[in-house]
Amino acid sequence: MSIQEEALELHRRLRGKIEIVSRVEVKDRKDLSLAYTPGVAQPCIEIQKDINLSYELTRRWNTVAVITDGTAVLGLGDIGPEAGMPVMEGKCVLFKLFGGVDAFPLCIRSKDVDEIVNTIKLIAGSFGGINLEDISSPRCFEIERRLKKGCDIPIFHDDQHGTAVVVLAALINALKIVKKDIRNISVVVNGAGAAGIAITRLLMSAGLKNVILCDRHGAIYEGCEFLNSEQALMAKVTNREKKKGTLADVLVGADVFIGVSGPNVLTGEMVRSMAKDPIVFAMANPVPEIMPDEAKAAGARVVGTGRSDFANQINNVLAFPGIFRGALDVRARDINDEMKIAASEAIASLVSDEELSPDYIIPAAFDPRVGEAVAKAVAEAARKSGVARI
Amino acid sequence: MSIQEEALELHRRLRGKIEIVSRVEVKDRKDLSLAYTPGVAQPCIEIQKDINLSYELTRRWNTVAVITDGTAVLGLGDIGPEAGMPVMEGKCVLFKLFGGVDAFPLCIRSKDVDEIVNTIKLIAGSFGGINLEDISSPRCFEIERRLKKGCDIPIFHDDQHGTAVVVLAALINALKIVKKDIRNISVVVNGAGAAGIAITRLLMSAGLKNVILCDRHGAIYEGCEFLNSEQALMAKVTNREKKKGTLADVLVGADVFIGVSGPNVLTGEMVRSMAKDPIVFAMANPVPEIMPDEAKAAGARVVGTGRSDFANQINNVLAFPGIFRGALDVRARDINDEMKIAASEAIASLVSDEELSPDYIIPAAFDPRVGEAVAKAVAEAARKSGVARI
Repeated sequence: MSIQEEALELHRRLRGKIEIVSRVEVKDRKDLSLAYTPGVAQPCIEIQKDINLSYELTRRWNTVAVITDGTAVLGLGDIGPEAGMPVMEGKCVLFKLFGGVDAFPLCIRSKDVDEIVNTIKLIAGSFGGINLEDISSPRCFEIERRLKKGCDIPIFHDDQHGTAVVVLAALINALKIVKKDIRNISVVVNGAGAAGIAITRLLMSAGLKNVILCDRHGAIYEGCEFLNSEQALMAKVTNREKKKGTLADVLVGADVFIGVSGPNVLTGEMVRSMAKDPIVFAMANPVPEIMPDEAKAAGARVVGTGRSDFANQINNVLAFPGIFRGALDVRARDINDEMKIAASEAIASLVSDEELSPDYIIPAAFDPRVGEAVAKAVAEAARKSGVARI
Repeated sequence: MSIQEEALELHRRLRGKIEIVSRVEVKDRKDLSLAYTPGVAQPCIEIQKDINLSYELTRRWNTVAVITDGTAVLGLGDIGPEAGMPVMEGKCVLFKLFGGVDAFPLCIRSKDVDEIVNTIKLIAGSFGGINLEDISSPRCFEIERRLKKGCDIPIFHDDQHGTAVVVLAALINALKIVKKDIRNISVVVNGAGAAGIAITRLLMSAGLKNVILCDRHGAIYEGCEFLNSEQALMAKVTNREKKKGTLADVLVGADVFIGVSGPNVLTGEMVRSMAKDPIVFAMANPVPEIMPDEAKAAGARVVGTGRSDFANQINNVLAFPGIFRGALDVRARDINDEMKIAASEAIASLVSDEELSPDYIIPAAFDPRVGEAVAKAVAEAARKSGVARI
């Protein structure tokens, strides 16, 4: 049986990967009068007096919404909100397993930015945080930006930031191997959607200066045509030499290739044109931009992909559960760059100097230390950067 | 310790009465590839092809949203959405306990009917049904009406219909005791908010012809001033003799008093003015319209209240879990009057002719037969009335 058939059978059998259970025993009238009327009036009154108590008297402190509009689900594209639900439920499973977070999936039947923003704002009081998922670019940027402004709970678009955090973690360790400093390297990011743009931004926050974003037409530069609003913003802060040309053209001499694009777009020849000890993160799924063997044969010193059957899997699951765990633990108002970089550093630090090798730059998805280490670092960074409320 | 203090302590200790758990074991890469990427793409594709499969491949088939805007929470009034959450969580606990339903609480930060309706419509694809809760009158009527029109899943405002279903159940059995027929009796409903209006409507659907609604100013009649939009609709179909006057005035000669109003508004003298063998349902909480002892001393043959410490508790929990269970089981598009009346009859039928007495007209909240009996009757009624999809 193929993995597709097996997965379908699993979903048919389970009829839902999550479930809501009661945490309170209600076996007689007395229990009912405490958990429900008339006793329940008292916690209501307390929250009315101090809204912060919603974090102490209800499940809000541990509850995150996983929200999609179904427009960019996996590699499937715009398949509609209900069809995105199996992914959202899966995400909720991972939130619980790796972060102890109660995550609930919601799909929104609208592609209109105003409607999506307004809907989420109006229900935000039910949650301790919002994880946006599989919303197409560039709408995802505006939606997130407006929600961050309008809500006092963390808003986090995982396709952007989860990916970026894990890429930075992998890069921190890869750079140790090749003994290069992020401030002095040049990076080419291929794919200028949600992930590519967020990766570029986070690496720049972490010190990277020299970076070029490419889309399918080649390098993005200031003044370039056919850019969407977010790409246009990126064109002003990246590629300061305003290089033009194809991916192959701008990759010459680069230290790092980061692919969040499509299958087989990177050739061995292109890797050979890069600087000494090239780092290649080829994260297209299921078929990467270049197969690890081929990249290594062409001289790549460190190779990472998105796949679990190769070394160095760059997998969001290393980031989002611990990031939300940490943010919830200190009731953070936001998830900011300081917290994301702290998460990257925490992930990277789990690979000791002795263990570090070109085939082991990042912990495995099931490394039991990850969630807690990330949560701790994120909570600390939230406190230091002033967004923690407790 | 008072019940208020005890309830508060319970809520402090629990920090939330519900929790989201995983139904799938994810212990290694293989599990991850089935529950999440890449395997999860297959159920997504199937739902994209046939949206009905969202009921088979995700938890939608068993999931209900419990939604409030916090404007009419218990007897506390407009306390805000977050402050209503302890009640919503309690409701979710009861949904699971008595109906096996996964219910998730949502509070909406808006009092605007358009915004509330639009928000719920946009997220309806995540759920198999919507339970509206503690939304103030008359907004609750318009919100429900518009949602029923705009959504293809059941919409059910429990403060209206849950109460109405249980009142009808109690009345069916009370009428057996006094040997009267619903088509020939006269009823006075005191309280013209969500519950009072819904009770009146359901009793009329069940055959009642002679009914007068009262608010605090007395009988509502056609042409009466100061009515809200919904009361004005009711004035056209009730009180066809256009009686005016106080509750005491119109109660003279009535067979049944139904109170969803406030404490101590019904006197023994008023009960004595009613027809032979009066039935008194005094459901104000915590202090009823009249205490059962006093009502009986004044000649009431059957007395019910909203309280668990008196006989004949008229409690919504007898209705909503089984109603949604039945509606979900047949994937009903709606919860219509046929289904509600079937629920009332199923509840009433659990009291056998041998057991039936003035002090036992309705099963207890914890009677384990109720949920299943209601679900079965509701599912059948849904099929017969053409709203079942499976």
